[in-house]
Amino acid sequence: MGDRYDIAIVGSGPAGLSAAINAKIRNKNIIIFGNKNLSSKVEKAPKVNNYLGFYEITGTELRDQFQKHINSMNIDITTERINTIYAMGEYFALAVNEKMYEAKAIILATGIEYTKPLKGEEEFLGRGVGYCATCDAPLYKGKVVTIIGYNREAEEEANYVSELAEKIFYVPMYKAEYNLKRGNIEILKDKPLEIQGDDRVRNVILKNETIATDGVFVLKDSVAPNQLVPGLLVENDHIKVDLNMSTNIKGCFAAGDCTGKPYQYMRAAGQGQVAALNAVSYLDSL
Amino acid sequence: MGDRYDIAIVGSGPAGLSAAINAKIRNKNIIIFGNKNLSSKVEKAPKVNNYLGFYEITGTELRDQFQKHINSMNIDITTERINTIYAMGEYFALAVNEKMYEAKAIILATGIEYTKPLKGEEEFLGRGVGYCATCDAPLYKGKVVTIIGYNREAEEEANYVSELAEKIFYVPMYKAEYNLKRGNIEILKDKPLEIQGDDRVRNVILKNETIATDGVFVLKDSVAPNQLVPGLLVENDHIKVDLNMSTNIKGCFAAGDCTGKPYQYMRAAGQGQVAALNAVSYLDSL
Repeated sequence: MGDRYDIAIVGSGPAGLSAAINAKIRNKNIIIFGNKNLSSKVEKAPKVNNYLGFYEITGTELRDQFQKHINSMNIDITTERINTIYAMGEYFALAVNEKMYEAKAIILATGIEYTKPLKGEEEFLGRGVGYCATCDAPLYKGKVVTIIGYNREAEEEANYVSELAEKIFYVPMYKAEYNLKRGNIEILKDKPLEIQGDDRVRNVILKNETIATDGVFVLKDSVAPNQLVPGLLVENDHIKVDLNMSTNIKGCFAAGDCTGKPYQYMRAAGQGQVAALNAVSYLDSL
Repeated sequence: MGDRYDIAIVGSGPAGLSAAINAKIRNKNIIIFGNKNLSSKVEKAPKVNNYLGFYEITGTELRDQFQKHINSMNIDITTERINTIYAMGEYFALAVNEKMYEAKAIILATGIEYTKPLKGEEEFLGRGVGYCATCDAPLYKGKVVTIIGYNREAEEEANYVSELAEKIFYVPMYKAEYNLKRGNIEILKDKPLEIQGDDRVRNVILKNETIATDGVFVLKDSVAPNQLVPGLLVENDHIKVDLNMSTNIKGCFAAGDCTGKPYQYMRAAGQGQVAALNAVSYLDSL
């Protein structure tokens, strides 16, 4: 049983940050999950001209302004990755690797760049497929594990699991100098197509070969919203919201690119504010 | 017949300015109507903490940032006051005192602080009631005119009309040192209740007296949205919009406080952006 926050915000782009500052100003006890660099998308923007108040600002400068803003308000980003959020009726349970957080309301500001599940991934979730290698590593002592890694953090997880597992197949979905430490990690530069099994995972089918495996970890930046929050209504790949940024789940709000186009910082920040203020109203009505 | 712009934006608060910068970045030919000080509401804000990117900024400083932004993009505010906007099918006609502007699309960002019409005001509009004293002054040569002024600009109009009219009753709806120049202007510090007449205006009923008058000018900061744009759908005093900031009139978008609560700058700026980008899509689809 973890702490119960008033509002948990998932995502540290403009939508999530704007939600955080507004909820905090309203004296709510908040937690915001995201990245140390806040938003890779903002950070990498060469030049931003359409964020009212800043002209010809670089993405990095804008990110720094955001950072300064949340620092001044003592808002820290929790960098743990949320696997699943369960609507429990009175509250939400956020499963984060080793632990569980609780919040009375949630604001999803997860952006749009998520990875579609592989064929068989959802089917075998919990039966050999997992999203947190470090959590589940003990299950695979002496066994064969396949790690499909979408980012460099997956390498750390691979290194950790390799201490327990007999053999690791590491399938990188990005290009880099892979920092994989042990001899029992085999890098397969191939394209995963499907996860197969019977009562549990048996094989991963890659484009060029099929490998036998006891477990598969899919380590990606973010999952689809309705995979993150089971039961969440999604339309045309976006979370369905109304003008109050309410979703179909009571107490669950959404803001930013995950709610639809245009994908823009200002829109995202505005929606984050609306989501936060409506989450506050929701809390006050409880 | 005036110039036909791609987009006319009404209002120079955060919603209108955000719409303007976004439309301009998309190479649209725009005109934005508003105030020299951009937004009295922003300007007077003591301290703003929830506009992401600026912490503990004063309203005046934020206004200055907005001004700098639009200056850098060569966006000028047109300070003429729009009386009525007519949806002509293919375009919109914006009646502005002496002239008419035309635009293919419009974005309403008029804010929420408008004045409710007086009893009888709408009934006698065009039959003795007007919103532009300088335009209609010639009609009242040698006659009695009542000017209900909601701001200091009304004093200038009163001074102008007093050169032609025989008598002016000036009913100020604000407190100030009134700068009224001629002896035929009588100040009535009273509360207007109703405009009465038969085929045209005959009397203005004030709380403490009834005055006979040939014409009444009601000079206010802004009019209700559905009074500004006949046919515009308004719900609970706000312009009805969808998530694209579209109104019920094709090519007419709205953003900011005029679309609903919460009344916040960031929300307004985000909506202005969405309105502009959807107005651009609309223009491109023509």
